[in-house]
Amino acid sequence: MATKSYNPVSLIAKKRDGKILERPEISYLVEQYTRDKLPDYQMSAFLMAAFLNGLNEEEASALTHAMLHSGRVLDLSDLPGKKVDKHSTGGVGDKLSLILAPIVASYGIPVPMISGRGLGHTGGTLDKLESIPGFKVDLTLERYREVLSTCGMVMAGQTEEVAPADKRMYALRDVTATVESIPLIASSIMSKKLAEGIDALVMDVKFGSGAFMKTPEKAQQLAETLVAIGENFGKETIAYLTDMNQPLGYKIGNWLEVEEAMEGLQGRGPGDVMQVTHTLAGTMIMLGGKAETVEEGMERSKEAVANGQAYEKWLEVTGAQGGDAAVPGNCESYPKAKYQFDIDAPESGYLSVVDAYKIGVASLELGAGRKTKEDRVDPAAGIELKHKAGDPVKKGETLAVGFTNNKEALEVAGNAMRNAFVVSREKGEKLPMITHRVDRAGSHKIKFNPEKDCNINKIT
Amino acid sequence: MATKSYNPVSLIAKKRDGKILERPEISYLVEQYTRDKLPDYQMSAFLMAAFLNGLNEEEASALTHAMLHSGRVLDLSDLPGKKVDKHSTGGVGDKLSLILAPIVASYGIPVPMISGRGLGHTGGTLDKLESIPGFKVDLTLERYREVLSTCGMVMAGQTEEVAPADKRMYALRDVTATVESIPLIASSIMSKKLAEGIDALVMDVKFGSGAFMKTPEKAQQLAETLVAIGENFGKETIAYLTDMNQPLGYKIGNWLEVEEAMEGLQGRGPGDVMQVTHTLAGTMIMLGGKAETVEEGMERSKEAVANGQAYEKWLEVTGAQGGDAAVPGNCESYPKAKYQFDIDAPESGYLSVVDAYKIGVASLELGAGRKTKEDRVDPAAGIELKHKAGDPVKKGETLAVGFTNNKEALEVAGNAMRNAFVVSREKGEKLPMITHRVDRAGSHKIKFNPEKDCNINKIT
Repeated sequence: MATKSYNPVSLIAKKRDGKILERPEISYLVEQYTRDKLPDYQMSAFLMAAFLNGLNEEEASALTHAMLHSGRVLDLSDLPGKKVDKHSTGGVGDKLSLILAPIVASYGIPVPMISGRGLGHTGGTLDKLESIPGFKVDLTLERYREVLSTCGMVMAGQTEEVAPADKRMYALRDVTATVESIPLIASSIMSKKLAEGIDALVMDVKFGSGAFMKTPEKAQQLAETLVAIGENFGKETIAYLTDMNQPLGYKIGNWLEVEEAMEGLQGRGPGDVMQVTHTLAGTMIMLGGKAETVEEGMERSKEAVANGQAYEKWLEVTGAQGGDAAVPGNCESYPKAKYQFDIDAPESGYLSVVDAYKIGVASLELGAGRKTKEDRVDPAAGIELKHKAGDPVKKGETLAVGFTNNKEALEVAGNAMRNAFVVSREKGEKLPMITHRVDRAGSHKIKFNPEKDCNINKIT
Repeated sequence: MATKSYNPVSLIAKKRDGKILERPEISYLVEQYTRDKLPDYQMSAFLMAAFLNGLNEEEASALTHAMLHSGRVLDLSDLPGKKVDKHSTGGVGDKLSLILAPIVASYGIPVPMISGRGLGHTGGTLDKLESIPGFKVDLTLERYREVLSTCGMVMAGQTEEVAPADKRMYALRDVTATVESIPLIASSIMSKKLAEGIDALVMDVKFGSGAFMKTPEKAQQLAETLVAIGENFGKETIAYLTDMNQPLGYKIGNWLEVEEAMEGLQGRGPGDVMQVTHTLAGTMIMLGGKAETVEEGMERSKEAVANGQAYEKWLEVTGAQGGDAAVPGNCESYPKAKYQFDIDAPESGYLSVVDAYKIGVASLELGAGRKTKEDRVDPAAGIELKHKAGDPVKKGETLAVGFTNNKEALEVAGNAMRNAFVVSREKGEKLPMITHRVDRAGSHKIKFNPEKDCNINKIT
């Protein structure tokens, strides 16, 4: 892209001094780095300067553009329809993709979903899908297009060819304390999502103990940056801020979450899971042109669950990607984890905290996640919550059940689980699952009705 | 030193977040870096965080300590007397070391002076000394001690063994836009000076166009940090802020400056040169215990010039380090540069600006300095000013003469020289050469008497 040559030291100094870099200057840094012409030590100095002095939306867009075009960008323009995808910043028990993609695709809106693996306390969609016997996420580009064109959706992993600059820069940020920067995070996410060849995007930006953004304020900044970058690329982008202080739903772990997703697709999903799913799916349906408003889209989303078309789509795509059709039909046939243990309520009262981060760490210890990129996950490991925050509990009652095939994990995971729960005398107030929508018109607070917008009880 | 092990990413994050690092944490980073256990990209991220968030005096002292002890530290405790040295932050026409070291040593105060080479627009003491035929600055440690013990002074270059961590970190800062940080500059200077085995130190911190610190405020911050570090190591340290908006004296270049230094040692030095020399030398004499006050030290300094003992010491040490004794006695015998040209006043009036930076660059172009570390300097190249700021000049009168052996340099250097001069209608006011003294008691403004403290006319 960039043809002009720059002095890298001057570009680092410019950002160090809080000045704004021009697009070709950012392109130059990223391109030279990708070509091994710019050493790691200059890139890390630049990243630290960017971390501390920030990047404005124009700079973040330029960085996204440079990382995006460091690799292959899919062109899906030959497939009819507006391609819409959803991305989550990562949480605990977040199986929403598995539910909403079939819902949206069941209306003929193509969903070319590229997902990641779990790392640390958060799960990854690919690991969940792979817990289905036979399910393949590593598709060739030809097979990827074929599944997308036949089923109207596909769920696969990112290839090596997508945004290699982002991959290298992320690895460098990881070892130079420059990860937690909103513009750097946003550019990294968007460079990968834009490589999918989508037309519009819905973002689920999580805040709270189980999220990367611990505060709603940080989540909002990230959402605004993501939307600004998306719009800068001419892709309509709508973000929601959602609560990740406690896990989503009742089940955490790979197969456990597939199971709960299928319950959701069959109309038996937990209230919090379905509330967020219908909001995100409804927005995707609106963006895909099959509803006038988000509210109308949400009605369509509920209908797709009620009339079975979403679950049918799920079975179709699962089959197309090699998944064993016998399993979804008969969850009980799935091999159980060898070890199973209960965590009981230490006293009677109301469950006031179910800490998502601690549950995520416990699940990781049980084998559902990976501590390093090389770890293998145990599909059957995980946690099933028996209660959610706000529930009245009796002393000795089971709060959660842990599952693992690793006997050595029992103690550490058990302690982590116990620490995740707080039982109080007071009932506490209900908090909204979704607090804001951020779109090109700005950030809008979402009205919360504690009687109706329940985040705990199952939708009936 | 440090035995505890740390996670380098956490240490980088700590500085990134504006927190204060403990001494062992800073030691760990520097030691691991020196041992190739910490990669350049982590050190450069740390340096950028330190650049932007600063290091307090305690951290700067810890950094100095770690860099100092990465290499050899001279122990001169077997030599009698308080060892005193002087260091300048670098300027144009700054030949003060050559005059003041013999003055101070002539009172039996040991001056173990380790100097550097010129880079960019500033000259270096070693290059000046080497313009004396036969003079050796690369001494073995044995010869270094021998000269110091016999002559009471020595002027040599830094060996590879001194502060290798500083050398590597400086090279890294140079390519990652992290040079111009006051605590990093101060730690770098002090780690090298403290390796000399000195007991006390006088710092000449320059400000203005020809200095690295362009403003008096920055120079004062640097002076305060240098004094704080020195005192932290138990070495009495006194700094002066001196003006480097115009070159010191009339002669710029290697041999030309040796010549002017010898004029100064023989009582014929320019007013500005001798004013700063006597202030710095007087302070060193006081620190060396041969005067009660700086003022008394300054009287001793003037006496040493007047009675010839300083010039005698110069001839003694020059001989001991291999310099041709015939040259100092007969400057006219020195080979002249092949090319010589005049810069004339474009109009009549008062010379209001003689820009030190531009004169430094012109001198560099003429061959007196080096653009890269590998360049060789031309001992005969340089500039002789015929007037200094404040002087009345007539149109067509010679302002300066350029000398070079490189015909190709004539045009570029000539233009740079012309641009260095501004002739105005107004005489302008006299400004002080020395504005502040900084010592452990704080920063003190120095009273300036424009009638007496002349920075232009020769001392009589």
